[in-house]
Formats: sequence, C-alpha cells, structure tokens
Amino acid sequence: MRITVVTLFPELFDSPLAASLLGKARAAGLVSIDFVNPRDFTSDRHRSVDDAPYGGGPGMVMKPQPLVDAIESAGAGVHRVLLTPGGAPLDQARVRELAARPHIMLVCGRYEGIDERVSRIAIDEEISLGDFVLSGGEPAAIAVIDAVARLVPGVLGEFASTVEESFSDGVSLEYPQYTRPPEFRGLAVPDILVGGHHEKVRAWRRREALRRTAARRPELLKLRRLSSADRALVAGDPAVLPASRTHVVLAHHPVIDRTGEVVTSSITNLDVHDIARAAATYGLAGYEVVTPVAVQREKIEHMARVWLDELAAEGARAGHGHRGHALAPIRVHASIEDALAAIGGPPLVVATSARAGDRRIRYRDLLRLLAEIPERPCALLFGTGHGLADPVIASADHVLEPIEGQSDWNHLSVRSAAAVILDRLFGCGA
Amino acid sequence: MRITVVTLFPELFDSPLAASLLGKARAAGLVSIDFVNPRDFTSDRHRSVDDAPYGGGPGMVMKPQPLVDAIESAGAGVHRVLLTPGGAPLDQARVRELAARPHIMLVCGRYEGIDERVSRIAIDEEISLGDFVLSGGEPAAIAVIDAVARLVPGVLGEFASTVEESFSDGVSLEYPQYTRPPEFRGLAVPDILVGGHHEKVRAWRRREALRRTAARRPELLKLRRLSSADRALVAGDPAVLPASRTHVVLAHHPVIDRTGEVVTSSITNLDVHDIARAAATYGLAGYEVVTPVAVQREKIEHMARVWLDELAAEGARAGHGHRGHALAPIRVHASIEDALAAIGGPPLVVATSARAGDRRIRYRDLLRLLAEIPERPCALLFGTGHGLADPVIASADHVLEPIEGQSDWNHLSVRSAAAVILDRLFGCGA
Repeated sequence: MRITVVTLFPELFDSPLAASLLGKARAAGLVSIDFVNPRDFTSDRHRSVDDAPYGGGPGMVMKPQPLVDAIESAGAGVHRVLLTPGGAPLDQARVRELAARPHIMLVCGRYEGIDERVSRIAIDEEISLGDFVLSGGEPAAIAVIDAVARLVPGVLGEFASTVEESFSDGVSLEYPQYTRPPEFRGLAVPDILVGGHHEKVRAWRRREALRRTAARRPELLKLRRLSSADRALVAGDPAVLPASRTHVVLAHHPVIDRTGEVVTSSITNLDVHDIARAAATYGLAGYEVVTPVAVQREKIEHMARVWLDELAAEGARAGHGHRGHALAPIRVHASIEDALAAIGGPPLVVATSARAGDRRIRYRDLLRLLAEIPERPCALLFGTGHGLADPVIASADHVLEPIEGQSDWNHLSVRSAAAVILDRLFGCGA
Repeated sequence: MRITVVTLFPELFDSPLAASLLGKARAAGLVSIDFVNPRDFTSDRHRSVDDAPYGGGPGMVMKPQPLVDAIESAGAGVHRVLLTPGGAPLDQARVRELAARPHIMLVCGRYEGIDERVSRIAIDEEISLGDFVLSGGEPAAIAVIDAVARLVPGVLGEFASTVEESFSDGVSLEYPQYTRPPEFRGLAVPDILVGGHHEKVRAWRRREALRRTAARRPELLKLRRLSSADRALVAGDPAVLPASRTHVVLAHHPVIDRTGEVVTSSITNLDVHDIARAAATYGLAGYEVVTPVAVQREKIEHMARVWLDELAAEGARAGHGHRGHALAPIRVHASIEDALAAIGGPPLVVATSARAGDRRIRYRDLLRLLAEIPERPCALLFGTGHGLADPVIASADHVLEPIEGQSDWNHLSVRSAAAVILDRLFGCGA
C-alpha cells in the first residue's frame, strides 16, 4: 500500500514513521510513504503558502494554488483525503475502507483555514480525527497512517489480533485483559480466566465487553439491536440492560392543571395502553399507574384483565405480539410513595418535566449512572395533565432534560413524551 | 504547563515535538515535555514489559508492575491519563480541561492490551482518540499534546484564533474560509466576503457554519437547542431546519389489519391530536391526514375547527401554548397521492414501518440526504392499523429503520411511533 502525505512539515513525520510498527512495515516493503510539500509549488520570491482571509478575522488561510498543484502532482488514481475538523469523524469502518485502497493521499492543512475551493477542486473525502482542534493536519495524519497500516496484511504478526478488538463489531469496547502475576497489589486475576475453560472464558469476555460498553459508552449499544446471541448472553443482566430494572410510574396525582393548580387528573384509556406498549417494546420491568381514586384503579385493573383473559383464552393462537403481554406488567397504586415502595430497592427516582429548570440530567449521563449502580431499580416518573407537581420534581434524585425541538411550541402528550423518553434511553437503531 | 509521557518508544516523539508549533512552544518554555520508559522499571534479565494474556488469545498484554512503577515515578500531583480505545472520546471540552491543568501524564500502552489492574491502581482518567484502533497510545499522545498545547496561553500568536473555530461552541463546524485570488479555476470568492460589511460577514459565516453542520454532522445540531440568536438567523432556512419542510402524512388507507389484509381504518381522535402536538413541537411544516371516507374527513376538520374557533375567541388570552396552534396546520385528503400533491415539490417520500426489510435508511443518513436537497419538501408516511400496505412502502423513496428496543415485543401505537421518529430526526437535547 502507498500513502502520499501533502504537508508543509514533512520532517515532522520522521520519527513516528521510523519507530516501532510503522518502521518495520516500511522496512518490509508492506507500506510505502512519500511526501509532497506545497511550498515547492509556489512561484513568488517568499514562497508564501498562506494569506489573510477574505472577510477578516484572525489567522491565515492556505492559498488554493500551491496546495492544489501539490495534490495534483501525484497524478490520478489516488484517493485524496483532506484532514480537517469539519470532515466525517474517523471510525474503524472508515479505517478499513482506507486500508483496502492501493494508494491514498493525506492532505494536511493548517487547521485554522484552507481556502474552501481546494476541497471542491481536488479532494475526494474530508475526514476529521474527532471533535477537537489540532494546529494542523499532521498529528491526524500520523494517527491515520498508524491505524491504516496495522490493517495492511502482514504488518501485524498475527492477523487474528485485529478481529476481537474494540469496534471490530462496531458497537462494543474490548474486554479487560490480564497477565501475570495472578495477584498484584492485592488485586487478583478473575478466576474464570485462570480456569482455562475456553467456552466460559469466551462468554465472560463478551459479557465484560458489553458491560464495559454499557458503563462507558452507552450510546454505542443504542446504535443497533444486540444480536440474538448477545441478548441470550446478557438476558436479565441489569448492568447491560438497564431497561430491565426500570419502571414507568404514571402519576394522576399530584399533577398540575393548565393554570398551575395541583389537581388529580382522570385516567385516559390510551395513556394506559400506549405507555404499556412502549414499556414492552423497550423491555421495561414494569408499569405503575398511580391514582388516589379507588374506582379509577379498578377501571385500570379491569382494562388489563380484559386483555389478559383474552390472551389466556386464545393461548398459543394469540401470538407473541398480543397486547395482553404488554398489559401484564401493569400495577395500580394509590400514591407515588406506594408505587416506589412496590418497586423496592429503593429505586433511583428520575422525574420528567417539560419545564426548564436546574438539576437536569442528560439521557446519556443517566445511562452511565445506571451502569454504576447495577443492583438498583429505576423509577421514571411521568405526570398527566400539565405535568408533575413541583414537590415531586424537587424530591426526585434527578430530573431528565426536557424534550425539545427547534420550535417554540412544546406540548407533547404524556403518551408521546413517555415513548420519546424511553426511546432516548433504551431505543436502538438511531 | 508540563506533560509527562509514559511510553516504550520515547524516540517516536522526537520529530513531532521539534517541528512547527510544538517546537516553538517548548523553545519558549511554555510547555515542557518529559518521558518515562516502563522498560527502565523492569528487573528481569530480558527487561520484559509484556506477557501472554490469561485466558488465551492473540497478542501480548503489558505487565502491571513496570507500567505502574513508571507511572508512580513521577510522584503525586499529576493527572494521569491512559490513552486507550475503551476510554471517553476526546472532544474539545476535554482538551480544555486538560490544558487547564499544570501537569498531566499521558500513558501510552500497546493497544492490544494493558493489564486491567494498571488502570484501577494508577490512572485518573481513560481517554480515547476516537472509535478506531491504533497500534499503541503514542499517535494518540502526539495528537493530545498538540491539541492541548495550542490552548496554553502564548502558544498561538493570536489567542482569538481559538475562539471562533470548530467545536468552540460545542455544536457547530467552522465556516468556510477564502483567501486570494478572488477567482481560482473558475470558482469565485462569495461577494459578501469581499464587500467588507462586518455585520453581514458575521451573519453569513454563522449561517454557513450551521448549514455545513446540518449537512455533515446533523447529530451535532441535535445535541442542544439552537440559541435564540441562531434560531432568528436561520428561521425558515430549509437547509438548517429540515423539519420546516417536512410533513407528516397519516394514512388510514391503504393499511393492513392484524391478519395482513389491506383495509381502511377508522380515525382515532387522539391520533389527530397527539401527532399534531408532536408535529408542532418539532417544528414541522404540516400534518396531512388521509382517509377515503368523506364523513371521517369532515370529522377531523370539525375537530380542528373547534380548537381554532376557541383560539380565535380567546385571542391573546389563549396563550402561545394553546392547542389551536398545533391543530392549525392539519389538512385532510382522500388519498396519499392527493396529500403528496398538496405538499408539492414533489416531496421526498419516506415511509415508516415496524417490519424489517431491505432498503432501510438510518435517521442520520436521512438528515444528510435532506441537507443535500434543501429545496425539496419531505413527506413522512405513517400507517394506522397494523401499518402501511406493502405497495406504499415499495413506492416510497426511502423507508426508515424500524424503531426497536432490546426486547422481542415491538408494537408501538402510531401516535408513539410518530413522536419517536420525529424526535429521532428533529429532537434536541438527547
């Protein structure tokens, strides 16, 4: 594989490309790296490669002509990559695509600016190392060269070592590694790794990889649904599947009405049905409906019983998708306190509110927090009417960020809000 | 500021730290960088720093003792960062935090494995450069040093040049830059930049930054709601706010029933209300309800008129949150074709379905696609009953990925599904 680097500072690459893995790969002829310097394509006496930006502002901007001429000097048939914070973030899938090409070019600009026309005329793809800013493209190019070169066949001693690592499946981090001694500063190697039972080791490593991902990068697990093998492996594992220990609590008291008065709202059939269906879809542990009105509690229990009776009567004919399955976990309570006591634990209490306020927690941060306390259930409180009364919100452990769009109107039904919040926390495939 | 690097390959850093910005920063005494080599902390004859992993598998794992001893040799009071793909992804906020510390340590391991106990004993924070794999921590350390050093006061000539760049506000990419000549290979510098009207230049740059972000990194714009100044700047800009040219189409025909038969479903009051409220919350252009049954169309129009009449009667007293505002954009149509014709354009037609199938588009990719065709409206088709009939799905331009949780039950109401899909596309604050 060949890599051409366009840079004003070719000497910056000397030592990284000579040492360790890259030095060996080049010596073995597996990867060849060459340089083009835009300064060699200037024609003025000062060999200037940059100029002040049109429209003013700090910093200098790289001129289009020397850079485009430098890029084009390598001829056709090369895939030209501009390294810039405005590009697509590098990930392992993109690294693999680059590694499969015979010849790529990495164009390093000053990060504070390259004339926009360079990209339109001479670049195939813009890539960013991540959401941070470097002084130039060179450190990014070093990282890209390293990541790409190690995938070139023959560069790593054992090809297998790129298969099980982080991101090889796109969604999970690597499992923890241990080597001798068996005990170090009071910390022992997990017994299962010492035992030598290959299948158990494999299952332990996969489970630890998924647990670690849930704890550190919960958003990765939301990218796509776990495979059926993974779901079987972590079935009921509260560390990997926080939904399985989370309950929705739908309160009809104390809630506020349109004027801000604290009231008891009436139950709505579709609140019961829609939220039960959402709770089942996202794999929640339970759905607790709270109303102090006894006759309304009976009505809800009746509603669920109708479907459960039908499910029982139809038996296997009912099919897995029968609504009875969704309504089965419904319980009714006279107060929020009763509901929390029934959940047990005690649960981490997370309120929801469309109103702005302090102490708001982001969805991702709540997932990380839940990973830290895998033994505790979680109660997500929703208010009917115009939302939960202030004392309920004040006494919750956390309050989720409100749901917003870019509009100024923000009045979702509680059914819609519950579905959206469960999706933000537990949905896959975004 | 002081940076200590723990690495088996200190020589790898020679040229990057000597050249360009970092060379100047070190020469000026603004940043000092020193190295510790774990190999200097071995006691065996072979000076070995790695060993085979417990539990088997490819590659070698760095032993805990030499690495921990090397880390601790720098004494206390240093913030110890392990560079590993399992860490928190580096972003500009984290770079700023690191740059504010007097002394940080960057620990470079082989990326295929460091004994897990090292992290538990001797590391304050694990950081990843991104979701890709390097041969070791060294290329990541070079990038971190560069990103951090340029924020140390005095390192960049003009401090202002770090203020307006990409990610400085956390959500937007940098605006396009231009320098002389005014025309290059037939491409001209935008007139507004040449004009020299500072306020117009500022507004143009901000708008271009937001447009570029919407086109390349739509997920960044969803992180938080735009500021009111930004919203005023891009109000009605279909490139930045794709919701403003998107219509929900709710079809009651042709849809399928529980058995898979194609039927016409009856309208449900709460479908009309809930989806209207979601469409208003996410800033959509319109809500088109389709039923071939004339009397049902009249019923919907009546429902909307009741609220609109009340809104008109209450006037200013109704308040901005009045439901009449949400119901105002409702229109009724006898067929999906009529609805699409009323939207005009023609719209990009995107179907939704809970059923798996090919040709599915991811939410993020749909946003990128919408950014490429800013002049075209978009129609999101939803089916009542058990979903849109197959021919409707087959004739759509795209079909969105189904909504899934980690459970095996997946039957959201169309009200819930519509809210979730609008949130995945247009919601802020995830």
